[in-house]
Amino acid sequence: DLIARAMSEQSQRIVLASRPQGIPTAENFRLEEVPVPALQEGEILVQTRFLSLDPYMRGRMNAGASYAPGVELGEVMVGGAVGDVVASRHPDFAEGDVAQASIGWQSHGVVAGDEARKVDPQLAPISTSLGVLGMPGMTAYFGLLDVGQPRAGETVVVSGAAGAVGSLVGQIAQIKGCRAVGIAGSDAKVDYICDELGFAGGFNYKTASNHRKSLGALCPDGVDVYFDNVGGPVSDAVFTQLNLGARVSVCGQISQYNLERPEMGPRQTWLFITKRLSMRGFLVFDFAERYAEALHALAGWLREGKLSYREDIVDGLENAPAAFIGMLQGDNTGKRLVRVS
Amino acid sequence: DLIARAMSEQSQRIVLASRPQGIPTAENFRLEEVPVPALQEGEILVQTRFLSLDPYMRGRMNAGASYAPGVELGEVMVGGAVGDVVASRHPDFAEGDVAQASIGWQSHGVVAGDEARKVDPQLAPISTSLGVLGMPGMTAYFGLLDVGQPRAGETVVVSGAAGAVGSLVGQIAQIKGCRAVGIAGSDAKVDYICDELGFAGGFNYKTASNHRKSLGALCPDGVDVYFDNVGGPVSDAVFTQLNLGARVSVCGQISQYNLERPEMGPRQTWLFITKRLSMRGFLVFDFAERYAEALHALAGWLREGKLSYREDIVDGLENAPAAFIGMLQGDNTGKRLVRVS
Repeated sequence: DLIARAMSEQSQRIVLASRPQGIPTAENFRLEEVPVPALQEGEILVQTRFLSLDPYMRGRMNAGASYAPGVELGEVMVGGAVGDVVASRHPDFAEGDVAQASIGWQSHGVVAGDEARKVDPQLAPISTSLGVLGMPGMTAYFGLLDVGQPRAGETVVVSGAAGAVGSLVGQIAQIKGCRAVGIAGSDAKVDYICDELGFAGGFNYKTASNHRKSLGALCPDGVDVYFDNVGGPVSDAVFTQLNLGARVSVCGQISQYNLERPEMGPRQTWLFITKRLSMRGFLVFDFAERYAEALHALAGWLREGKLSYREDIVDGLENAPAAFIGMLQGDNTGKRLVRVS
Repeated sequence: DLIARAMSEQSQRIVLASRPQGIPTAENFRLEEVPVPALQEGEILVQTRFLSLDPYMRGRMNAGASYAPGVELGEVMVGGAVGDVVASRHPDFAEGDVAQASIGWQSHGVVAGDEARKVDPQLAPISTSLGVLGMPGMTAYFGLLDVGQPRAGETVVVSGAAGAVGSLVGQIAQIKGCRAVGIAGSDAKVDYICDELGFAGGFNYKTASNHRKSLGALCPDGVDVYFDNVGGPVSDAVFTQLNLGARVSVCGQISQYNLERPEMGPRQTWLFITKRLSMRGFLVFDFAERYAEALHALAGWLREGKLSYREDIVDGLENAPAAFIGMLQGDNTGKRLVRVS
């Protein structure tokens, strides 16, 4: 039968071979081929079409838990993916359905049907379930609107502005009547956010000689909301430009992920008093009960042409490690995906 | 007449003679004697009985504005005070009333009646209008309850715990069913907050060899609310013990006020994500419209014996500079006041 046929296939997977010191290298990963595991009642077997690569995965390569436990040595790397249901022992899924789930870096994944989301291929390309209509989209939506609380007319600055989340944050800010200014790591990325995504402005933090001055010029009325994907010196500069009552939404700290010990930086707490700042960190999972609301809004903006996105697709599961390492160093524009089958 | 008599007196005042580099010295202040200025319509003349000394005054000795402009060289040092109305050209005040206002470091002050508060000497000793029933009390009330949002059963840590604000924060936390743990700078202060004020625990940060371990032992369930008066390494240690969803209320940063340039510290922003922290800075003036609410609650707790306070009184305006310099180094327990007349 179908299940038996699916089971007889071999699955390719990438496991954590060793823990990185600093920036990960190819040696930290190992490609394996294993039989597809047996399907238990309530589970589905998904053949991966796209694997999502996201900065948070770097944290999972460490031994200690951060907000979630790390991947064990020899275990499959964690990750969201979308693919075809090739076998189902769950009542909500049938063969031929498209499912998005935490499958990991592998060509075939067995997951609990209750923890998978059915994707409607008519709504948008299925890869968007990992981007604008997936975790990055919801991260941008809740992190900006709920945590950042932007009001029309305000200036919103986002770092990592050409990434999967940042590119959406700036666009949603503009949709809400704010002025979006992005910080990114190449001139091409700055051109992309300004020319294609409609940001009011942006600058290349790698070549700008004085971040504070660049921001001052781009944000003559100061900064009301800062959506932080990167941390480090870029964020220090943004802090100097925050207005009275500004809000900082902390989404990521990619500048810090590869450090072997915590970096030192200027203490900024005094600014919290003089400027009455508030800063809050979040995870998209905190908003799980409201995913439908975000999905509805994002899909609507997409349909109305108010939201653009770019996918940065690498072919072949075997190329996932290099694509991930490159992404941590900023070589992607938009959502980085691996096309698996 | 009365006004003419009051006017004919000489007023003693302390002006800013020079700007401090680091910790202020006696040379930064100058005692002067000047005639009492003429009273305009709408003003009152107050003869100071108590002058309040507060850490924020250090910031006003600098040239640049922080949240308020600095004191100009040769100008009277800013400060709240309470005293007797000896002349009034304001309909709400009569000779013999007691008024609390921003009089500054002087024996006689002319202030707008609209910016003065009438103090009821029957309610409590008038010096409390500068402490538990004044700015420090309201700072503790709003900074803990509104900014910190403590829930019964939670652990609240306060730094500067034996000071005017900190000693009230811990007591209010206990009143609200929380467990208050204080950090202070001497064994006597720790004894005071634990034995007299009913804090659940405390430690002396100057002698504890490992702040993190001291906190861990005193807060076995972690820290849910941190009320920060000091900043610097003490706060770094508290951050390591914060629970998921903890709130940080930033009231003061006394460890930083005398630094000539911003100090470096470990970057902690990553913790905001993993622990979903929120941090907010505030000034008591942000809550000006709700002072009556705080005053009502604080006076009630005082009357019921739920709130204790200690005053640390220095005699003579001429001793205000030394008393202020000492306070910045932590030599006070409770509210530091100068008895002026």
